Amino acid sequence: MAVNLSAPVTAELHPVAGIELGWAEAQIRKPKRKDVLLVAIAEGSSVAGVFTSNRFAAAPVQLCRAHLAAGVGIRALVINTGCANAGTGEPGIGAAQTTCVAVAEQLGCGPVQVLPFSTGVIMEPLPVERLVAGLPQAKSRLAPAHWAEAAEAIMTTDTLPKAASTRIELGGVSTTITGISKGAGMIEPNMATMLGFIATDAGVAPALLPRLTKRVADASFNRITIDGDTSTNDSFVVIATGKNGAPQIESLNDPRLETLTAAITAVAQQLAQAIVRDGEGATKFITIRVEDAANPEEALKVGYAVAHSPLVKTAFFASDPNLGRILAAVGNSGIADLDAGRVQLWLDEVWVARDGGRHPDYREEDGQRVMKQAEIAVRIALGRGEASETVWTTDLSHEYVTINADYRS
Amino acid sequence: MAVNLSAPVTAELHPVAGIELGWAEAQIRKPKRKDVLLVAIAEGSSVAGVFTSNRFAAAPVQLCRAHLAAGVGIRALVINTGCANAGTGEPGIGAAQTTCVAVAEQLGCGPVQVLPFSTGVIMEPLPVERLVAGLPQAKSRLAPAHWAEAAEAIMTTDTLPKAASTRIELGGVSTTITGISKGAGMIEPNMATMLGFIATDAGVAPALLPRLTKRVADASFNRITIDGDTSTNDSFVVIATGKNGAPQIESLNDPRLETLTAAITAVAQQLAQAIVRDGEGATKFITIRVEDAANPEEALKVGYAVAHSPLVKTAFFASDPNLGRILAAVGNSGIADLDAGRVQLWLDEVWVARDGGRHPDYREEDGQRVMKQAEIAVRIALGRGEASETVWTTDLSHEYVTINADYRS
Repeated sequence: MAVNLSAPVTAELHPVAGIELGWAEAQIRKPKRKDVLLVAIAEGSSVAGVFTSNRFAAAPVQLCRAHLAAGVGIRALVINTGCANAGTGEPGIGAAQTTCVAVAEQLGCGPVQVLPFSTGVIMEPLPVERLVAGLPQAKSRLAPAHWAEAAEAIMTTDTLPKAASTRIELGGVSTTITGISKGAGMIEPNMATMLGFIATDAGVAPALLPRLTKRVADASFNRITIDGDTSTNDSFVVIATGKNGAPQIESLNDPRLETLTAAITAVAQQLAQAIVRDGEGATKFITIRVEDAANPEEALKVGYAVAHSPLVKTAFFASDPNLGRILAAVGNSGIADLDAGRVQLWLDEVWVARDGGRHPDYREEDGQRVMKQAEIAVRIALGRGEASETVWTTDLSHEYVTINADYRS
Repeated sequence: MAVNLSAPVTAELHPVAGIELGWAEAQIRKPKRKDVLLVAIAEGSSVAGVFTSNRFAAAPVQLCRAHLAAGVGIRALVINTGCANAGTGEPGIGAAQTTCVAVAEQLGCGPVQVLPFSTGVIMEPLPVERLVAGLPQAKSRLAPAHWAEAAEAIMTTDTLPKAASTRIELGGVSTTITGISKGAGMIEPNMATMLGFIATDAGVAPALLPRLTKRVADASFNRITIDGDTSTNDSFVVIATGKNGAPQIESLNDPRLETLTAAITAVAQQLAQAIVRDGEGATKFITIRVEDAANPEEALKVGYAVAHSPLVKTAFFASDPNLGRILAAVGNSGIADLDAGRVQLWLDEVWVARDGGRHPDYREEDGQRVMKQAEIAVRIALGRGEASETVWTTDLSHEYVTINADYRS
């Protein structure tokens, strides 16, 4: 059951000029479900991506990196669910290449202009013949209005499709940003695979888009965690088609760059938080903010230590204000010279711990009240400096175990 | 339900000359259960300990470190369950000191000769009056034969008491080693707190015992993990009473030192593995051996990455040979220059993955057969060097969530 999340409404997903989306039911793993998505991108668009840090990067991720590095202009994305094509060695690379060749033939571009993405079970061969056989169907459905169906086509254990869209004024020109995401477990950004795709009709020079993409990811998809596992297939891609009628952003000094980055970040945060809200077995949406850290790295260390602690997560599931577990996780985060006596802890507005121990005014009923909420903010101050970071996560429930124990059946 | 573990039999727990154990029902948290253990140690014994790396080290851990550093000869241990006395600030230190003073009065030694240990809920005040009130009862029960009752007195969420005992010939002299442990969750060595106490009647010079204790811990209690959380209270103590009638071991070159270390390690491994077998909700006992690593640190990194992955752990729970999750965890272990193409994976004797992909001869039914066992060995070869390490862990079950969601109720 997702936490405060509802399916996107087609009417609220603005088409992005230069982007068309079509899907197929290719029976990659199961019959009668959308499991292949084709995204056609207008010539002249800029495309950039960030990918998993997992050393077992899937075959499609390896091809994405190579094709982006080739720099000849990306014209299509192809995404399949049902099989991750990871841990598949050389045959896996071959299957991903075959996919790109087939897409290129359909759309009349080069294979190196196609980015492939896969999500599903690891270490099983990709049924590439069925994928390729589904491509004409996907092509026949290509249309700018198909964002909602696209969000549906990339779902795996997701209970709801995830999409977000906004329109902003950029240098006086109306500009659209629309994106989709999927992922429910193995999120840090993570497995069952986190995928995120955002398109804008703003124009951004190819040289500038990778930096923008990294900044957006670091403020959104790279700040969510469900179970601490990082997928072999995680990918986040930003496409800038340049079809909004305004001149392309070509310099770091163009004031539109900050405006656009902020707007794309807002859409990315919505998509990333939707993944957490729909996290496997999630019953709570937890925001963990770490303040007064010596630097952003240690703020993140503490945030993730708390977000990953199974004991903290089960306490959230139980609505049990067993909040000493949060202090223990902070102490366990690997900051060798942390002075526990300076640590403060709040749960929403309730001051739980002061100077490393329970606040004298803290009452369990106050903690209990906040723990019962569906959305909870944990704030931890380390008393070491000026840096702060925010991480979003969920609780750990029976349903999480059920889903992951039954995933392949 | 513990995995292949049964309660210790009193007849098999050899008393250790110089050690007496007594317990009380002090109602620290709940009535009618053994919740305070007193261990009286003969004068002239050597005592050493290793403690949690958590920066929120509990008050008793802080006192243990200070009292051991004082070097005036430890004469008693006092252990309470029901309250961890962690995250309790200055009042917590005061409560632990009061406990030591009371024990010292009972036994006629100095407070600095007492080591206190606590396990239970974090960030709640220790009911020190009830603890102190229980000490005369514990003292009245002091006897060398009470190891089984002692193992029972330190239990929290443990379903079975844990003890191990052996007799060896040490330089021609019969020598006894007996120990107890507790801990079921938050183990790395970890929380709900891991506690281990081993006594031998061998004599070991005080200067040599800390090194021996560290070596033993690194081959036993420091190689187990249940949920990756490290307790504020984890402690492991070795006592050498020197009552076996042989001269004390005073030099690193004494050949008895290796023999004794190996024998104590074997007892410690039995105690540490008992903690895993009785892990919260455990249905499987998993041995993870990482070979051909460049160094022991990276072997441990990989071992713990696999042992901590919720997706790997839920697959074990489900007996689902979804073994790509193990490769993904290996790729996610933080070795930046890992070559996935050199990684091999075995499940017991079944060769699952070769050169980073599924072995051509691997059949799912073979993986399935091993996954159904109660004890499973995972072997991972990294193809990077000569180092190897072993880590012991459990699966992640519904019962784990239930226990930790209900712990305080």
